[in-house]
Amino acid sequence: MEFTAQQIAEMLGGFVVGDPQATVNDVSKIEEGRPKTLTFFANPKYEHYVYSTEASIVIVNADFNPSQPVKATMIKVANAYESLAKLLALYQQMQPQKVGIEQPSFISQSATVGKDVYVGAFAYIGEKAKVADNAKIYPQAYIGDGVTIGEGTIIYPGAKIYKGCKIGNRCIIHAGAVIGADGFGFAPNKEGVYQKIEQVGIAVIEDDVEIGANTCIDRSTMGATRVEHGTKIDDLVMIAHNVIVGHDTVIASQSGIAGSTKIGNNCVMGGQVGVAGHIEIADRTTIAAQSGIQGSVRKSGQTLFGSPAFDYMGFTRSFVVFRHLPELKRQIDLLMQERNQK
Amino acid sequence: MEFTAQQIAEMLGGFVVGDPQATVNDVSKIEEGRPKTLTFFANPKYEHYVYSTEASIVIVNADFNPSQPVKATMIKVANAYESLAKLLALYQQMQPQKVGIEQPSFISQSATVGKDVYVGAFAYIGEKAKVADNAKIYPQAYIGDGVTIGEGTIIYPGAKIYKGCKIGNRCIIHAGAVIGADGFGFAPNKEGVYQKIEQVGIAVIEDDVEIGANTCIDRSTMGATRVEHGTKIDDLVMIAHNVIVGHDTVIASQSGIAGSTKIGNNCVMGGQVGVAGHIEIADRTTIAAQSGIQGSVRKSGQTLFGSPAFDYMGFTRSFVVFRHLPELKRQIDLLMQERNQK
Amino acid sequence: MEFTAQQIAEMLGGFVVGDPQATVNDVSKIEEGRPKTLTFFANPKYEHYVYSTEASIVIVNADFNPSQPVKATMIKVANAYESLAKLLALYQQMQPQKVGIEQPSFISQSATVGKDVYVGAFAYIGEKAKVADNAKIYPQAYIGDGVTIGEGTIIYPGAKIYKGCKIGNRCIIHAGAVIGADGFGFAPNKEGVYQKIEQVGIAVIEDDVEIGANTCIDRSTMGATRVEHGTKIDDLVMIAHNVIVGHDTVIASQSGIAGSTKIGNNCVMGGQVGVAGHIEIADRTTIAAQSGIQGSVRKSGQTLFGSPAFDYMGFTRSFVVFRHLPELKRQIDLLMQERNQK
Repeated sequence: MEFTAQQIAEMLGGFVVGDPQATVNDVSKIEEGRPKTLTFFANPKYEHYVYSTEASIVIVNADFNPSQPVKATMIKVANAYESLAKLLALYQQMQPQKVGIEQPSFISQSATVGKDVYVGAFAYIGEKAKVADNAKIYPQAYIGDGVTIGEGTIIYPGAKIYKGCKIGNRCIIHAGAVIGADGFGFAPNKEGVYQKIEQVGIAVIEDDVEIGANTCIDRSTMGATRVEHGTKIDDLVMIAHNVIVGHDTVIASQSGIAGSTKIGNNCVMGGQVGVAGHIEIADRTTIAAQSGIQGSVRKSGQTLFGSPAFDYMGFTRSFVVFRHLPELKRQIDLLMQERNQK
Repeated sequence: MEFTAQQIAEMLGGFVVGDPQATVNDVSKIEEGRPKTLTFFANPKYEHYVYSTEASIVIVNADFNPSQPVKATMIKVANAYESLAKLLALYQQMQPQKVGIEQPSFISQSATVGKDVYVGAFAYIGEKAKVADNAKIYPQAYIGDGVTIGEGTIIYPGAKIYKGCKIGNRCIIHAGAVIGADGFGFAPNKEGVYQKIEQVGIAVIEDDVEIGANTCIDRSTMGATRVEHGTKIDDLVMIAHNVIVGHDTVIASQSGIAGSTKIGNNCVMGGQVGVAGHIEIADRTTIAAQSGIQGSVRKSGQTLFGSPAFDYMGFTRSFVVFRHLPELKRQIDLLMQERNQK
Repeated sequence: MEFTAQQIAEMLGGFVVGDPQATVNDVSKIEEGRPKTLTFFANPKYEHYVYSTEASIVIVNADFNPSQPVKATMIKVANAYESLAKLLALYQQMQPQKVGIEQPSFISQSATVGKDVYVGAFAYIGEKAKVADNAKIYPQAYIGDGVTIGEGTIIYPGAKIYKGCKIGNRCIIHAGAVIGADGFGFAPNKEGVYQKIEQVGIAVIEDDVEIGANTCIDRSTMGATRVEHGTKIDDLVMIAHNVIVGHDTVIASQSGIAGSTKIGNNCVMGGQVGVAGHIEIADRTTIAAQSGIQGSVRKSGQTLFGSPAFDYMGFTRSFVVFRHLPELKRQIDLLMQERNQK
């Protein structure tokens, strides 16, 4: 399917600079732009590619003023990134959608499966589980006994939902994610041998949550581990038992939240962040990658950095001095030597 | 099923403070306590919830003296956490247990499967594999050729055990865990191209070990990677080839042990810890979260912190000064300036 | 099958010191050597085991001069580690190989499957997918629609390849690895609610790449996330969307590369390394374990350390001073006190 720059500009409410009849049938990264593809430019780091790309159409912000000639046709829009998102969503909607029950799959007699659902081969749906309308359960996914899967939710291949857990509407659970495995609870006896604390709670994933590949969200000891609506979690993240993650929070890959901690709303965590157990993180907290949070963060809106973490600017200033510590030490040694010689 | 405070107190050897006829039919977290549920209080951080909880019964330590009125019926016991563990274990035992062979599953003709075993649909049991009595192999689990699974061991959905590995009795292997994948062994040739070192060993998991979801324990180059009895490993942990983890050791989520390292007995590692290869960690070593251990730890019973790690108190004291480095630098600059002006 | 020291020495082009008729039928680690096994010695840390091992044959470097009597028969070779690799490869080739189609498996009618392929039970091969000759698709693996799998490539149990991704020849993808899950792309609207950016690209794994268990390599927003030929990636690694990893690079366990970053050729990363997004790492860069790379590395051949990372020696020198910061602070306090009293 082909589109002209003119057609795309109309879809996006933008205006064309260049040939309105330029046509595209695919999308590309700006640094790999090929003829007949559409690309976009938003991050200033990539400006030089605007002038060299072979892509036929580039979506740009309305306030972009090229400093060199641009060969491609430009479509100027209020927000290039948002416009791209809109186009990609249209592109995705045009892809064929999976529907129907493939064989062999395993659906317990007591399970309930809604309308227009996809159940892939080798998927397992346990006793009294409920899969709502328009949900997609990909091959080899495991939906344990009593699990509920909301409307339009996608469970990708091999994701595992342990018994009793609840997944909301319009969620996306990627391949290999494990929801509801036992929390890590053990009590040592007098001989130092660990006794298991049975984990009889569940995990609850609210609406519009996306969970990345191979991420683990453990079930609660009692009650529920909970990820609130609209939160997005990347691959290989660990959410321990009894944790509450607030709504519209973003957690990047390989971060881990220890048990019973409460993460606020609208927080942002970089990759490989660690958060200690039994603490609270205020709303709108931003945590830089690889940071470690040891204690509660009570004031909202802060940015933290370091392991252990403190305020971003403070850590950065201390780290600048850290790099020059050998020189500082030489100066102190000199001063001490002179003092001691007096 | 309902129980009265009196009945529960008798089970636990505790005594009732309040209404002995208070009844419960479920458990809850203290901060989410609902009527007719039982909860517990052990961590002093949560004391204020004792006074406000809606739970009908709270298990508390015998030495707890409330500073305000408690609405709930209390059951006083020697150790509230242990008593809770005991109750949760009873609760768990009352749950229905999976047993029998679901279809379609794949059991090789040369495999041996014991009595009262559960084999879920889409589980795979390879040639000459042995599954002992009372084991549970959940759906989509993979038991490779020649693998042995001990008595009463649970392999949760989608866990994968590569060929030849041995899993002891009463182990729990959570969903998505991979036991026995190839160790990471490559030798560069003169052109810098890596040649694979075949990994012909196995992985051995001894009795009473629990392994978290999506954790990886690689097979040995030769001989065996080994996790000794009673050790508990959380989700997303990496145990590399040739590693030995001692008995009754606890490793929290996202920690990684590099190749050929020996971890002692009764050690405790926080989350996201890294341990270098080819070293030894003494018994009863405690390693704080996010720490990195570069060299052998020969003295047992130490607590380590930092990346690279040293003794916990030492790191903490250095880190306090780190936070004030910019101020220290200003003082040194001043002293040096005055010195140079003399 | 048994071999004599003489036979093995001929295979390796080495020479025998000791009994040329010593026989072995298995391999062992040097510290666990048993009679009738072959082992090797290359790392000087293990020299004391050469004198105590019960193994019948030890492969050693030609320049090894024992300082004590060696009971085992030695085979001296130019490079003991390479010779071991050669023997292990022979050992591996003698193992029985899986071939044929097990039932039940799911192969779409429009899929193409080559000659001498293994497809395990419960494996899924989607529409228009292509599996080349001699490939092995283990049980419960998922090959999405339109995926291509190259010649001789092994996909271990439960690995998942999302639609459209391309896997080269002679690759090894370990259990639970996920190739092509959605990149982590979201744009917040004015209310702070995240809108998904559809990820319409793919992931491309070139020839001779090995990918560890439960590692995640996300698909690109547009175009392709790419791992170039000969690169080896350990378990639980995260490669985000749009990343390019150069050829013959090695990435140890639990490392993560954020979106759109380009890693050079012949790089080496230790475990738990983090690399920020939208940067470039020059060829032959070495990054120590747990380090965090915040900015581009333009000069090739450097070794980096720390979080944030800088040059290895610089970090090490600063860290030495860090350990003694409390003492430095006392000295500065003293100097300042004396200055202020003047």
